[in-house]
Amino acid sequence: MTATEPTRTRERRQRVQAAETSMAVLKALGHLGGRAGLSLIATQIDESPAKVHRYLVSLMEGGLVGQDATTQQYFLGLETLLLGLAAMRQADPIRLAEASLIRLREELEVTCFVAVMGNKGPTIVRFEEPGLPVTVNVRVGSVLSMLWSATGQVLLATLDENAVRALAQTELEAATPEQRALLDARDPIGALQQSVLAAGCAVVRDTNLRGISAVSAPIYNYADRPCAVLTALGATGGFDPSPDGRVAQAVRREAQAISRLLGKT
Amino acid sequence: MTATEPTRTRERRQRVQAAETSMAVLKALGHLGGRAGLSLIATQIDESPAKVHRYLVSLMEGGLVGQDATTQQYFLGLETLLLGLAAMRQADPIRLAEASLIRLREELEVTCFVAVMGNKGPTIVRFEEPGLPVTVNVRVGSVLSMLWSATGQVLLATLDENAVRALAQTELEAATPEQRALLDARDPIGALQQSVLAAGCAVVRDTNLRGISAVSAPIYNYADRPCAVLTALGATGGFDPSPDGRVAQAVRREAQAISRLLGKT
Repeated sequence: MTATEPTRTRERRQRVQAAETSMAVLKALGHLGGRAGLSLIATQIDESPAKVHRYLVSLMEGGLVGQDATTQQYFLGLETLLLGLAAMRQADPIRLAEASLIRLREELEVTCFVAVMGNKGPTIVRFEEPGLPVTVNVRVGSVLSMLWSATGQVLLATLDENAVRALAQTELEAATPEQRALLDARDPIGALQQSVLAAGCAVVRDTNLRGISAVSAPIYNYADRPCAVLTALGATGGFDPSPDGRVAQAVRREAQAISRLLGKT
Repeated sequence: MTATEPTRTRERRQRVQAAETSMAVLKALGHLGGRAGLSLIATQIDESPAKVHRYLVSLMEGGLVGQDATTQQYFLGLETLLLGLAAMRQADPIRLAEASLIRLREELEVTCFVAVMGNKGPTIVRFEEPGLPVTVNVRVGSVLSMLWSATGQVLLATLDENAVRALAQTELEAATPEQRALLDARDPIGALQQSVLAAGCAVVRDTNLRGISAVSAPIYNYADRPCAVLTALGATGGFDPSPDGRVAQAVRREAQAISRLLGKT
């Protein structure tokens, strides 16, 4: 009656601490580049080498850590690699963009969306509108222009794919003289790609939807691959789409935040 | 005096168990595709949902697991992804091939090596010889032929890179009529690539080194990228280099074993 409760509480606390130390050892090995000797790991988490060694033995039994027979160094093992792969497979830019879309909608009162490269072109997959939305005829499922939408321009600048270039080329050939005048005369696609990469975002005014301006920034994943595009749009005039403006800064910042959640380092 | 030792032993055992349960929860989530509800995770490791929940809370505090606010599902989080990236970065095909090289050398008494695609062509990076080696003028650092070595043929068949194709084309243009006769008349490179992919290995007899036969198989990593080649060679005649022979089977099996250690699924 007297000893049971405190003992249980203490045991539970010890178990929680053990799980935490186990994670701390694993993360320390990760921060040390995935490979390190016992004393370095112990120093990293400020624990005794003897204690860290016990946890390493347990992590080795689970296959999360291995030990090099020659150097005695510990390294992150196959099970950790496989856990990472499972984490990557379910790290979904669309889900992870949700908080950013809501922040953009609420802080800037803009319409914003996430698009990915679909087989027909840049395709909107998630869409958020403020209470008083501008009227635009795009929604989830809409395929955007490769060359005249900010979203398409970001994909064109960041994805090194034949299909993307072919779509842009087709649109270029169908361009009106007015549209053509917006692009570089000598190297229309190359110059556009360079300006987007230099600014870290693409900006369009009225080129894709009349009266609408938009700003887009790329979302990258753990492998540094562009995997989605974050876009904010608004009525031209009520919205500053310049690359240094408030909207562009917010879009770039949120795209970077989503990229970090996807493991981009 | 009486209670201290057993209590300590018991506490240590509990801590080890806690670390193990924590890993088990993490791995269960991995096996369930990186995303699952509490009851499924609990069923997977045969523990009570209440217990699993406590460990999930601790894993969430460490950032290894996240919880979806909408579906309540747990998923492998950013820290797990980053640990996986660190595991991948240090998962070295050359180091992981060591045991396979020793097995090949001892079981088949063959010379064997690991090569990777270097900037000058297929390059030997690890080399093992049996007690009575055949005399070959290749060693660590040797650059092999793209078209006439088994190692080169595997890289040519599996790597979709311009540099690889250009090297093969250059060698093709410099080929003697004898060498040319070994290849398909219409599509010399394409037919070679297809036969290597179909057999899962490349086999050469005397084409690269006179009197030497060799068998090579590709090593793939977690991303299904060919990252190295495992090769066994021996004196033509004393060595069966047929794709169904004992050496080819062993080379393929060991290359697959190394690939699994690199996270290929």
